[in-house]
Amino acid sequence: MIDPWSSAIVDYENLIEQFGIKPFSDLLPDVKDPPILMKRGIIFGQRDYGRILKAIREKSEFAVVTGMMPSGKMHIGHKMIVDQLIWYQKQGADIFIPIADMESYSARNIDFEESRELAINEYLTNYIALGLDIKKKNTHIYLQSENETVQNLAYLLGRRVNLNEMKAIYGFSGSTNLSHLYVPLIQVADILHPQLEEFGGPKPIVVPVGPDQDPHIRLTRDIAERFKTKYQFIAPSSTYHRFITGLTGDKMSSSKPKTAIFLSDSPEVAAKKIKSAKTGGRESLDDQKRLGGLPEDCVVYEMLLYHLIKSEDELKDIFNNCKNGTTMCGECKIQAAELLKKFFVDLSKRRIVAETEARKILSKD
Amino acid sequence: MIDPWSSAIVDYENLIEQFGIKPFSDLLPDVKDPPILMKRGIIFGQRDYGRILKAIREKSEFAVVTGMMPSGKMHIGHKMIVDQLIWYQKQGADIFIPIADMESYSARNIDFEESRELAINEYLTNYIALGLDIKKKNTHIYLQSENETVQNLAYLLGRRVNLNEMKAIYGFSGSTNLSHLYVPLIQVADILHPQLEEFGGPKPIVVPVGPDQDPHIRLTRDIAERFKTKYQFIAPSSTYHRFITGLTGDKMSSSKPKTAIFLSDSPEVAAKKIKSAKTGGRESLDDQKRLGGLPEDCVVYEMLLYHLIKSEDELKDIFNNCKNGTTMCGECKIQAAELLKKFFVDLSKRRIVAETEARKILSKD
Repeated sequence: MIDPWSSAIVDYENLIEQFGIKPFSDLLPDVKDPPILMKRGIIFGQRDYGRILKAIREKSEFAVVTGMMPSGKMHIGHKMIVDQLIWYQKQGADIFIPIADMESYSARNIDFEESRELAINEYLTNYIALGLDIKKKNTHIYLQSENETVQNLAYLLGRRVNLNEMKAIYGFSGSTNLSHLYVPLIQVADILHPQLEEFGGPKPIVVPVGPDQDPHIRLTRDIAERFKTKYQFIAPSSTYHRFITGLTGDKMSSSKPKTAIFLSDSPEVAAKKIKSAKTGGRESLDDQKRLGGLPEDCVVYEMLLYHLIKSEDELKDIFNNCKNGTTMCGECKIQAAELLKKFFVDLSKRRIVAETEARKILSKD
Repeated sequence: MIDPWSSAIVDYENLIEQFGIKPFSDLLPDVKDPPILMKRGIIFGQRDYGRILKAIREKSEFAVVTGMMPSGKMHIGHKMIVDQLIWYQKQGADIFIPIADMESYSARNIDFEESRELAINEYLTNYIALGLDIKKKNTHIYLQSENETVQNLAYLLGRRVNLNEMKAIYGFSGSTNLSHLYVPLIQVADILHPQLEEFGGPKPIVVPVGPDQDPHIRLTRDIAERFKTKYQFIAPSSTYHRFITGLTGDKMSSSKPKTAIFLSDSPEVAAKKIKSAKTGGRESLDDQKRLGGLPEDCVVYEMLLYHLIKSEDELKDIFNNCKNGTTMCGECKIQAAELLKKFFVDLSKRRIVAETEARKILSKD
């Protein structure tokens, strides 16, 4: 069982074997202008992604759905989702961004108003600052608690999902509260509602997620099948991305500040943080010159790989110069810190305008 | 366990002893201008009704909440609810009438649009025709599926209700579907939401129900208590009324047409139906003259008692003349049929205007 409410480090290959997630690499040759996350294997798995590629190729309608749960601060790992949204927007996708205030309430006891503020100040502001065009046509951003269509669809779908099933998927027990029990249905409706008549009817949907979210995806696909006759739903596709490693070598998590570079960190703090991150360096400089470093096990290299180096050739050089003992960790950290600082200077500037825009979209009236 | 989804004949005295429902008769002397249903013991039980009487006496704010579940046709037994609403409206109550389309869907697989039509054509039209003033200030009629406040409150309250509790109250099991499991929370929110700030804050609420609905009442009172600190909820009061007996001697039920006089029946059909009802008559006319009839076990007498005879003296005469063998069933049936016919002629006339009004309130835009 994969538990979507825990946050352990995941064995990616096991997922592919055990749960029927297919390797993304099989389809990579068919992707035109793939984004970095695909090219570099950070997006490692998929379900039924072929129909998304077909829609892109044929310029037919499709949608991407990816929620944000407002709880705590956004860290640099969350940028992955925004990068994907921006890419899909370029491919002509309809964009749906549910703000999971209902989940935030049942999972973290954050009330709807607090969620709204967090969604505005923290999440949406950063999404915009990172480059998402929220004003683009067919871009839908909503709070779950304010979306009657989604709430009603969840309820309608719930008639064909029983308690035994929820227990098997999520391990719910007698002490599980009803909101926690019910909220997965809201997520199912988040994913399926773009296929309702009012949004143009059945269409391929892709949901980019971390592998811990796969239980939701499987449940959604099952339910889509059960209501196929009624709504002509097409089972949603999904992609799976690796989690970014935290500064300490564990998973990066907002609830463990020592692991995370937050998007709201100042450029100086961000630079300082990456300089203190766990690297793939050897015990001594001599060892490292002799044996080379371990970039595949280095938080600094991962930051370059996921977010900071655009050019494949440049990245290859960095990797090789570490591997063969030419570049030492100090030097590499300085480069990463510089790039990160630049990135954060730029981001914090853009966040000022972004916040006004975010507030406009989600203001109460 | 009382099962709110079954419809067996109920042992009223047992209810009072076993579940802590108090006899209504204790409070009757304190009710100014009690309606027939109270005077004649048809409303037989209550919880915390004292605070409702206090609100009436002091002319302070209180509300009555009573839902309608659109499924099948309204029969004359349902008139009891409308009679109570009209009386409460006169006492200055805020009126809340949730239309339980969400329950109708999970319990009967009736979709929201069908519910809306049923609610307009059948239920609300009859409510108005029976004399309810739906245009009166502070009268709220809504479809559950369209009420965001109620749906969100249900979800918020669900965080402190767990699965074990629902199993104990309703006997839910692993095969129970999620909509069925969740919908009691919607009803709880129907009852409690008039106490939210936007409706003027905490106030006494009374819910007139049949005794089969008591599990909902107890759950609602428990939940109100749990959220007392957050919302200052006052536990809702309730009254309990006897069910009207069906024409065959069983419970009157829309799903068993032979038992019911429907409000949409023509005056002639209604009159004919009451003439064929089970009476408290003896095996032969001679026996009846000698022993007297059994009005306490007579569907025709019950119809007079619940709905057709306004004067206490007149009713007493009818009762006594049956008891002492003066009036025979045939004669009594003719009287009831005449009265019923008159009632139905009047009702069907008023229903024409009523339907337009009902449609205006619940039309989609």
